Amino acid sequence: MGEKLGEGKTKEVFYLDEDHVLLKFKDSVTAGDGLKKDEIEGKGVLNAQTSALFFRVLESAGIPTHYVSMKDERTMIAKKLSMIPVEVVARNIATGSIVKRLPIKEGEIFDPPIVEFFLKDDSRHDPLLNYSHMEYFKLMSRREAEEAEDMIKRAIKVLSDYINKRGLILYDLKLEFGRLKGNLVVGDEISLDSMRVRNPKGEIYDKDIYRRGEPLDKVKSKYSEFLGLMSH
Amino acid sequence: MGEKLGEGKTKEVFYLDEDHVLLKFKDSVTAGDGLKKDEIEGKGVLNAQTSALFFRVLESAGIPTHYVSMKDERTMIAKKLSMIPVEVVARNIATGSIVKRLPIKEGEIFDPPIVEFFLKDDSRHDPLLNYSHMEYFKLMSRREAEEAEDMIKRAIKVLSDYINKRGLILYDLKLEFGRLKGNLVVGDEISLDSMRVRNPKGEIYDKDIYRRGEPLDKVKSKYSEFLGLMSH
Ligand SMILES: Nc1ncnc2c1ncn2[C@@H]1O[C@H](COP(=O)(O)OP(=O)(O)O)[C@@H](O)[C@H]1O
Ligand SMILES: Nc1ncnc2c1ncn2[C@@H]1O[C@H](COP(=O)(O)OP(=O)(O)O)[C@@H](O)[C@H]1O
Ligand SMILES: [Mg+2]
Ligand SMILES: [Mg+2]
Repeated sequence: MGEKLGEGKTKEVFYLDEDHVLLKFKDSVTAGDGLKKDEIEGKGVLNAQTSALFFRVLESAGIPTHYVSMKDERTMIAKKLSMIPVEVVARNIATGSIVKRLPIKEGEIFDPPIVEFFLKDDSRHDPLLNYSHMEYFKLMSRREAEEAEDMIKRAIKVLSDYINKRGLILYDLKLEFGRLKGNLVVGDEISLDSMRVRNPKGEIYDKDIYRRGEPLDKVKSKYSEFLGLMSH
Repeated sequence: MGEKLGEGKTKEVFYLDEDHVLLKFKDSVTAGDGLKKDEIEGKGVLNAQTSALFFRVLESAGIPTHYVSMKDERTMIAKKLSMIPVEVVARNIATGSIVKRLPIKEGEIFDPPIVEFFLKDDSRHDPLLNYSHMEYFKLMSRREAEEAEDMIKRAIKVLSDYINKRGLILYDLKLEFGRLKGNLVVGDEISLDSMRVRNPKGEIYDKDIYRRGEPLDKVKSKYSEFLGLMSH
């Protein structure tokens, strides 16, 4: 691999050429702003494959992503983006932080989805941002934020439909955007680390299994089962 | 007075006629979402007078408010509004909650001002809202939220200029809006409980004196000194 350009909690980034990077998915799993941390052998491959699959689904629906192809089972070739350190979240059904923060009950349905922007800042627990903050921090202009909202609303619709057809329910979705020649493009990953998925009985398939302290092999088997269900 | 329609932490609301209410300012002072609470004799009169003065300043600048006139020294005659339970905050200079929440340092200058919306919900510590939340809760449409932003930006400009001319500096401002025949109108109060004011040496004139646990007579004397400075 080329020069290492960076490394985060779950991926390493390597130089490929002027316009491309390699994203190598690690076996690490983290929660609580990085405070809880473990290794699950094979998790990197599962998340790389799941991400590749969902990026292709978005591309087919006309939503621009950084995805090019896979170099090996855990390494993605991606367009090099200038990443925006913001997590953009769309919610179909209430669960997680929103039910603690706001007068919203677990399971409430959002139609249209609620969209939120959070600053990637573990030490401050990823604070909520509004347009005014994003303009001040020069993260996104109001026009770009509105475009990101529009893109994630289209993305959650497309992915919900895809996941529904395979018997599961998409509760919420987190995307990270970057810029390519001035345009917003979906980057990073789209995996069970970045969405919440349950079956109609309420059984959890996503990183909440890990957040709730269940055994690591349970996490791996659900991630694996999910990829199987999504793959046909 | 007519029938009591409601009472909050600092004011009682009475029926006056179909279109008007009386707002009677109490001597109570509270902080920490109502957990810290005291009485300061004469504070109600000071806040009623300060509010009347600033509502007149806004009206002169063409910003619609609920203010009609004073019934007595602590009781305001106001247009009856359908109040929106949201605190709209504009910030010229960083202090208070924003420096804890975001990577912003005490004293940073915002030009244009940062504007934020908070749900009035003491039990949840007044959580930050974005447009998407406000639409879901049917608090404000996106168009109304943009109008409120525009109004508070004009208000903080007008009040900053007024306060500057009298030797002091307006750090931030909280307004509460209501609706009258479908239009947004500034309601509630505009006092040292709802703005932060310091002199060029950094001496505090507002409710932060109380929040920091200083003696109650210090609070009262600063509120009184401020009203004197603003009154000519
Ligand atoms: N297309 C891309 N171009 C450049 N960098 C990217 C791209 N996609 C993702 N990245 C970056 O890869 C890094 C590693 O990802 P990750 O391990 O998820 O980091 P983090 O712990 O900050 O979430 C992040 O800094 C992310 O912004
Ligand atoms: N013009 C108005 N018409 C009707 N109600 C008003 C008006 N202005 C303020 N109010 C209401 O007066 C009540 C009392 O105010 P306050 O003591 O500040 O309450 P709180 O503790 O909720 O901040 C609040 O519910 C506020 O919405
Ligand atoms: Mg990440
Ligand atoms: Mg009040």
